[in-house]
Amino acid sequence: MKIEVIENVLKYNEDQAEKNRELFKRKNILVLNLLSSPGAGKTSLIIETIKLLEDKKTIGVIEGDISSTYDAEKIKKYTDDVVQINTGGSCHLNATMVSQALKKMNLDKLDIIIVENVGNLICPVGFDLGEDYKVVMSSVNEGDDKPVKYPPIFIKSDLILLNKTDLLEISDFKLDFFQKKVYELNPAGRIIKLSCKTRKGLNIWTDWVLEAVK
Amino acid sequence: MKIEVIENVLKYNEDQAEKNRELFKRKNILVLNLLSSPGAGKTSLIIETIKLLEDKKTIGVIEGDISSTYDAEKIKKYTDDVVQINTGGSCHLNATMVSQALKKMNLDKLDIIIVENVGNLICPVGFDLGEDYKVVMSSVNEGDDKPVKYPPIFIKSDLILLNKTDLLEISDFKLDFFQKKVYELNPAGRIIKLSCKTRKGLNIWTDWVLEAVK
Repeated sequence: MKIEVIENVLKYNEDQAEKNRELFKRKNILVLNLLSSPGAGKTSLIIETIKLLEDKKTIGVIEGDISSTYDAEKIKKYTDDVVQINTGGSCHLNATMVSQALKKMNLDKLDIIIVENVGNLICPVGFDLGEDYKVVMSSVNEGDDKPVKYPPIFIKSDLILLNKTDLLEISDFKLDFFQKKVYELNPAGRIIKLSCKTRKGLNIWTDWVLEAVK
Repeated sequence: MKIEVIENVLKYNEDQAEKNRELFKRKNILVLNLLSSPGAGKTSLIIETIKLLEDKKTIGVIEGDISSTYDAEKIKKYTDDVVQINTGGSCHLNATMVSQALKKMNLDKLDIIIVENVGNLICPVGFDLGEDYKVVMSSVNEGDDKPVKYPPIFIKSDLILLNKTDLLEISDFKLDFFQKKVYELNPAGRIIKLSCKTRKGLNIWTDWVLEAVK
């Protein structure tokens, strides 16, 4: 018997990501890979997005966590199509995990899938899931130096969300510094400032999503 | 003062943690491995700790980041012994990286070394650096569900710091829930609540450090 050895994990992932991408295209589904530190507000954003777009688009969610179904439980109140992936300790999702999750989803009904990646500013960025766009969410309380300290995720993301802007007034977060550093890394990137708590700026985000889904 | 930068030290040797530990014991240095999400406040805590203990203990710092000397630049104002490790993209420090950093430090002069690990709630926990204690810092704005979603780091840490408690009043963070979940995972763990901004609770932390250094 021949033992198959997968030597290049990244190449294998790329092949699977391409298959996912073909499937998404065939089913006409916009797929967003949502990345952030733990606690930046990914789950809150997903819930607000489903609520704001409920009359316009059907949104499914893939929840990535090392364990628990905590976030999926929150989200299932707002959509029928939520699948939890427990990575069993792995620090990022990969394309194979996502392809497994897709089998549990009603793809014919969905316009958009938001993949909430594992909370981690480093590891997920190297693993294409077949998504249309990588969206990184930073939050005010993490500090304005995140682009300086974690450059790759800001370089590779198509959209940069800055959440918890309601805290700008009581923090020493320098918005100019943050924006300057992001644009140095990613001149083509776009920054949207928002607060899931006060809902300020969420309409700019949903406009971006609606434009992307076209 | 020049900040030493060690780039791309990726080789990991399990035995190295033990060698580090022997060296720390021989030199009578307390070593703390400080873990958290990006932006939880590790660097601020280190600076406050050096300031509060400056008449009592000499503290050196090893700064772990995927790139930049941003945090080390801040810390070098407060101690002569700070070494920056750039992991070259790797999502955690390992014992070999630390052993390289130690060569740049004046170990005969130091009472304490604080290792600021790469901001990441998942990957660093699996890599022993030879430290005496793992200290995980969570922060109020990350939400009270971090123990539920990232259990291993709360299980394996000796001390759990909850930072940014000045934000408790304006957040929906449930302190009882957080504490309950931490103690479920780690009945022997201790939680210290503090705010590096208002300095509330920092004396309890420094008392813990002084007790540990004995």
